Amino acid sequence: MTALKNDTFLRALLRQPTDYTPVWLMRQAGRYLPEYCETRARAKDFLNLCKSPALATEVTLQPLARYDLDAAILFSDILTIPDAMGLGLYFAHGEGPKFERPLREEWAIRDLNAPDPRDHLGYVLDAVSEIRRALDGNVPLIGFSGSPFTLACYMVEGQGSDTYQQLKTLMYSRPDLLHHILEVNTRAVTDYLNAQIEAGAQAVMVFDSWGGMLSQAAYLEFSLPYMARIMEGLTRERDGRTVPRILFTKGGGLWLEHMAASGADALGLDWSIDIGEARRRVGERVALQGNLDPSVLFGTPETVAAEAKRILASYGTGPGHVFNLGHGISQFTPPDNVRVLVDTVHGESRRYHGG
Amino acid sequence: MTALKNDTFLRALLRQPTDYTPVWLMRQAGRYLPEYCETRARAKDFLNLCKSPALATEVTLQPLARYDLDAAILFSDILTIPDAMGLGLYFAHGEGPKFERPLREEWAIRDLNAPDPRDHLGYVLDAVSEIRRALDGNVPLIGFSGSPFTLACYMVEGQGSDTYQQLKTLMYSRPDLLHHILEVNTRAVTDYLNAQIEAGAQAVMVFDSWGGMLSQAAYLEFSLPYMARIMEGLTRERDGRTVPRILFTKGGGLWLEHMAASGADALGLDWSIDIGEARRRVGERVALQGNLDPSVLFGTPETVAAEAKRILASYGTGPGHVFNLGHGISQFTPPDNVRVLVDTVHGESRRYHGG
Repeated sequence: MTALKNDTFLRALLRQPTDYTPVWLMRQAGRYLPEYCETRARAKDFLNLCKSPALATEVTLQPLARYDLDAAILFSDILTIPDAMGLGLYFAHGEGPKFERPLREEWAIRDLNAPDPRDHLGYVLDAVSEIRRALDGNVPLIGFSGSPFTLACYMVEGQGSDTYQQLKTLMYSRPDLLHHILEVNTRAVTDYLNAQIEAGAQAVMVFDSWGGMLSQAAYLEFSLPYMARIMEGLTRERDGRTVPRILFTKGGGLWLEHMAASGADALGLDWSIDIGEARRRVGERVALQGNLDPSVLFGTPETVAAEAKRILASYGTGPGHVFNLGHGISQFTPPDNVRVLVDTVHGESRRYHGG
Repeated sequence: MTALKNDTFLRALLRQPTDYTPVWLMRQAGRYLPEYCETRARAKDFLNLCKSPALATEVTLQPLARYDLDAAILFSDILTIPDAMGLGLYFAHGEGPKFERPLREEWAIRDLNAPDPRDHLGYVLDAVSEIRRALDGNVPLIGFSGSPFTLACYMVEGQGSDTYQQLKTLMYSRPDLLHHILEVNTRAVTDYLNAQIEAGAQAVMVFDSWGGMLSQAAYLEFSLPYMARIMEGLTRERDGRTVPRILFTKGGGLWLEHMAASGADALGLDWSIDIGEARRRVGERVALQGNLDPSVLFGTPETVAAEAKRILASYGTGPGHVFNLGHGISQFTPPDNVRVLVDTVHGESRRYHGG
């Protein structure tokens, strides 16, 4: 493979010195970009886009052509694993993801198996390899998966939910069955991320999008320990370089100390926490990624720049910060504001490094 | 007025000694009760129910007839104020609240006025008086309002939202206009709560249901200071008794220290925070109300009792805890589990008091 020309992102995740604060954006290849919408229209369907390595490569690279981003992230969906388990992922027009066969019966839960990624998720691994080739060493590629708990939410509910009534009914009446799902998901996610690393992913991120709707006691029983086991099972080095791991529980700001003990190199932060306070709590143990409210990008360019500077100043001097949004970028974001953001982070952050 | 027979709730809010931990449930008069559904069917429409003092009194008292609760809460809606401002509140079938005339233009924002509660919200004040009479001193009555920020969310969006795109666009492009709305709302909420106290409310609660979707910086600029001004403007004593104030920002667990400095006597907690940790952070300054995940009530009776005991044990010995859910009770709650909860709190909490 070609040598990496910009390793700022990987170094920051390991809290090694960098010249500036690297930046990428969750869901950076997305609907706010007209070129993405054009590719998606050609693909007809979101799943076709995910399942075609050529198209996934095309959209992964689109934001990098526009903006000076420090990392690429595999274009895929967090629900590929339950789809590979046979739950039948589909996207109804204008709605979020759904499963044809949600897990509602004990026999179905007992029947669940971790899929071999080479047999059932080859299209993802092919996309990883093809994106790596296309990146040509310009920036590192991030692989990712949903967390065992977040996957379980979708698998049990069959779709997104505001209350997760089905999932929580299971949790508070048959915790043994939920733990069984989580066991299987943990094996599946570990294998899947290791296969992505094998195929070329240079960092990996676990998205625990729904862990934040748990009580602390439930989070420490049903979400975090499974993510910690994944961290333990991941390939640590590839081609002589450490493969850093990022753990992101949206709404997990109260639990950072617990998360910092999970084996992750970096924690993703949503926008509810002040990043300087997060650093004082856990910054000696992990790097921090975040944490601009994506809605700031609906504001004026001056506000975008001011809020980016506020976060850089709050984190302060020294390594260990990867700038990002606190959640995926909205489809209604004006693309010009993204340029303002990326350029502000690069221009303003040098004062907090080196010297 | 009749002397109060059970003042456990009021004493706990002021961190005075009690014999046991008092308990009430947010949205305790609600759709999980068949008798509520029956009254609501007679009222035809949710707004009729709110606007009829006789029916509002009837449903307010229903949960007290079933369960040994330590407080009643006025049955009303958090959006009565913007309705009184002329925004045209309505409930479309099977959907949440909506406004016919959301605030989208500068002239409409500049035209906004705080309504005189006696002129425009007399039906709420009549309900408060009638409920007080009907309670006959058995337990105290809680009055309430939405927070200035939460009201502003609905007023600008015109309905509930997952992303609050309109509100945040305003916040990050015309903060001056949002501050103007918040100023007017602050006067309106202060007048409204004082009128409720005048009519007989013995404690008041401010529901900041949406403040938790802000960044810390935005919360400290757009939500908390306005609530602190309300606290300052509220009637402190009525009939020789202190009227305690409860402040509840859902998702505000990271900001408890700031909230504890707002002038509130007690803070409401959602279920994401461990109540023992919350007590260690702010328990010397405020009482704490919460914090069972309402979804626990979907579980087995044994789980309901175990989770209630866990919260009592986590809070520990001494006064200052009002047991509650971390959010409103779900319409899908089995009523028998509520009895298990209330009886467990009463039975198990005596060991943490007196002695």
